[in-house]
Amino acid sequence: MAEEAAVRAQADTVRRLKQDKADPDEIAKEVAKLLEMKAQLGEDEGKHKFVLKTPKGTRDYGPKQMAIRERAFNAIISCFKRHGAEVIDTPVFELKETLTGKYGEDSKLIYDLKDQGGELLSLRYDLTVPFARYLAMNKITNIKRYHIAKVYRRDNPAMTRGRYREFYQCDFDIAGQFDPMIPDAECLKIVHEILSDLQLGDFVIKVNDRRILDGMFAVCGVPDSKFRTICSSVDKLDKVPWEEVRSEMVGEKGLSPEAADRIGEYVQLHGEHHGVVPLALLWPGDGRCRAHTRLAGATVPGAAALAHLRHGCLARGLDYYTGVIFEAVLLHEENEHVEEPVSVGSVAGGGRYDGLVGMFDPKGRKVPCVGVSIGIERIFSILEQRLEASEEKIRTTETQVLVASAQKKLLEERLKLISELWDAGIKLLNQLQYCEDTGIPLVAIVGEQELKDGVVKLRIVATREEVNVRRESLVEEIRIRTSQC
Amino acid sequence: MAEEAAVRAQADTVRRLKQDKADPDEIAKEVAKLLEMKAQLGEDEGKHKFVLKTPKGTRDYGPKQMAIRERAFNAIISCFKRHGAEVIDTPVFELKETLTGKYGEDSKLIYDLKDQGGELLSLRYDLTVPFARYLAMNKITNIKRYHIAKVYRRDNPAMTRGRYREFYQCDFDIAGQFDPMIPDAECLKIVHEILSDLQLGDFVIKVNDRRILDGMFAVCGVPDSKFRTICSSVDKLDKVPWEEVRSEMVGEKGLSPEAADRIGEYVQLHGEHHGVVPLALLWPGDGRCRAHTRLAGATVPGAAALAHLRHGCLARGLDYYTGVIFEAVLLHEENEHVEEPVSVGSVAGGGRYDGLVGMFDPKGRKVPCVGVSIGIERIFSILEQRLEASEEKIRTTETQVLVASAQKKLLEERLKLISELWDAGIKLLNQLQYCEDTGIPLVAIVGEQELKDGVVKLRIVATREEVNVRRESLVEEIRIRTSQC
Repeated sequence: MAEEAAVRAQADTVRRLKQDKADPDEIAKEVAKLLEMKAQLGEDEGKHKFVLKTPKGTRDYGPKQMAIRERAFNAIISCFKRHGAEVIDTPVFELKETLTGKYGEDSKLIYDLKDQGGELLSLRYDLTVPFARYLAMNKITNIKRYHIAKVYRRDNPAMTRGRYREFYQCDFDIAGQFDPMIPDAECLKIVHEILSDLQLGDFVIKVNDRRILDGMFAVCGVPDSKFRTICSSVDKLDKVPWEEVRSEMVGEKGLSPEAADRIGEYVQLHGEHHGVVPLALLWPGDGRCRAHTRLAGATVPGAAALAHLRHGCLARGLDYYTGVIFEAVLLHEENEHVEEPVSVGSVAGGGRYDGLVGMFDPKGRKVPCVGVSIGIERIFSILEQRLEASEEKIRTTETQVLVASAQKKLLEERLKLISELWDAGIKLLNQLQYCEDTGIPLVAIVGEQELKDGVVKLRIVATREEVNVRRESLVEEIRIRTSQC
Repeated sequence: MAEEAAVRAQADTVRRLKQDKADPDEIAKEVAKLLEMKAQLGEDEGKHKFVLKTPKGTRDYGPKQMAIRERAFNAIISCFKRHGAEVIDTPVFELKETLTGKYGEDSKLIYDLKDQGGELLSLRYDLTVPFARYLAMNKITNIKRYHIAKVYRRDNPAMTRGRYREFYQCDFDIAGQFDPMIPDAECLKIVHEILSDLQLGDFVIKVNDRRILDGMFAVCGVPDSKFRTICSSVDKLDKVPWEEVRSEMVGEKGLSPEAADRIGEYVQLHGEHHGVVPLALLWPGDGRCRAHTRLAGATVPGAAALAHLRHGCLARGLDYYTGVIFEAVLLHEENEHVEEPVSVGSVAGGGRYDGLVGMFDPKGRKVPCVGVSIGIERIFSILEQRLEASEEKIRTTETQVLVASAQKKLLEERLKLISELWDAGIKLLNQLQYCEDTGIPLVAIVGEQELKDGVVKLRIVATREEVNVRRESLVEEIRIRTSQC
């Protein structure tokens, strides 16, 4: 209000000066002042138009989403534990220089924190680089660990398809020297176990090797210095048509048109099933794998392996991979009758990164590592849609009993009962308003007559049956009736 | 190397010019160039001196710390669930303006993200403001929820005492219209239940009310406009002596010396136990509370309540509290014989904030809320120290059995067995190197003779006993033997 009055006064000043035909310089000065005041006021007004939302590419999880999330996490964690993994956690941000030089072209998607004095920080982009930093910092050369946490990428979100700027990764990694390929195969087995457990329909695990890709690039005449950046371009092939990728290679990245065309010959070869190896061959005795899993190039050397690229050439853009790389994609459930199933996107990926820990170790000591990351958001989108379609009712609390009374004056008696039940570990609610539609199976009603008789009235919500239960056997009664549910 | 050679060449140039007694301006120009080149080189060298650490005020959780953390979380979550709460999650960052104007003087401790184009973002400072934003955004007027997540404060860390810049909060809040004081009392009960369950020794829950504080300020002659800022000063009394707080009030905040001295009279009154109300009076039937809990001013109006300030005047600096405020402090366990126990710091706090949701609602509709936040980091420090002292061995995996073989060539047979056991849900490890010192109770050994006989040798690690188990009863045998552990 005070500011608006000041603007009006300033406008009067300008008007007066103009009427008085004052010095044009003076008029200009006062006009400039007026415009600035108006701009200021406009900004202040703008502040009141507060937008009530979460940041772009993020979302809240309500109680129902949390219940679905927990189910998926439990399946994943129990698989990681079955494989003997320990769990660690790292900070959400790292020193900026910890992330520098690890992600190639994706580095532009890193969230930096503002320089408010002190260290320069960035939000973690994945859980792999923090894990390598953790190993080097603690001189650990041998560990099997999992880590479930949010990571941050300033990417273009596509939230309906489960692509967010803040999203969970569920990582499992094996660090240390072991029989060749055994930890790599265990990571593939984990992807297979988890995607099977979650019953997400058919999926394909694509496998390749950084060294095969590098070999292909060499054969095609790509200079060594351009391997990584050309690899990033190839990685885009599942989203972008070949012509666009080719023009990026030639136009932006300065690759010769001949080399680009030679790459094109490889990556455009379609699903001839060359080099497809059932996982069962890699993992003996596991017949279950035969049905859905095909591996391209895992054990087949050279260019033949690259011919199996029905679902795009697997390249994976990150800089740090040194050996096997893999990615799992779900196939449309609905289109099972279609001959050529369409991939709905990657739900897991990983690979071997034997050089990353050495980048952090002061003496450059390497620790061989291989790992897998389960992308829970797409899986979560699918589970959420499925649950909505099924009309299954999700309970968002574990509340066993609601404690109620008809009479206001019995508040103290109600609180006494509540306290007894809490002490016995019974999960309860004491607010009637809140209990509608939440599926709480029992109501304990405190009434005057019941108090005199030393009983509590127990209503079974599902059947509307009511029974009087003696106070001293109430806990037992609730336990029996809720374990039946 | 190239840069160093260039610096040496430039140094030669400068030397030659000096020898030749060249134009002083020209010499100065070349010297400046040399210095800049040296500085540049120095910076580049600096880059190679990479510091291997987590950001200031943060830390990694290794597998042992995670095991302790899980124990504490489980105790807290099971209490929240017993009280019928649902769980939600919100993004780690919010729009900067969502946090603006909510924290008073503490706002300077908020981490901002760098402006990389798009929205201006800040890391969440607590879970209360995101909760209020969530309620307003989803038009929820009635919920009991918990939320366990990390929050961020650019404070001076004191990590040995469990004070970090990234730390967990475990929040429980009740939103909605209920019988007066009942949700408030439930929050206090939750603090009591959790601190008792975790067996952290004696504690005191201090209770006050924003309105009593405001009344005191009015009586002391503090102008209305200074209530919040003077309240922030009073909040510092548990860390800073009265003289310093007084000089801040008078010097920095422009309070009259008379008003400051009158406040001093109130806040310096010591432990006369005026207005101390056992929680049992608030929460009938709960005898357990009588032992450790004292409430100052919860039900006693006016200045008398403020006389109980043995552990500092409870003020709580945050702007958004409107009614009851409380804080739990642990007392030194070691000094139980000392008459005046020393507080080791706040482990829980909260209060009523009836105006916060209205700040987000477009029409200013208010939702009454009260909540409590458990500060897990200090509790965690105590549990960690205690566990180290006790020499109890913490298992960091749930692995039941290690599958091993003496002969390299049995790899495939070992993998077959492993696959069978994984399918049966047995938690196992297949890498011998990794299993030392981790407390895995069983080793399954695949040998040639055993293969022929259709058995597996099972070694019980604790007793070194070995038994041959028929392949078809191995899963059952492992289950029995590990459920005994």
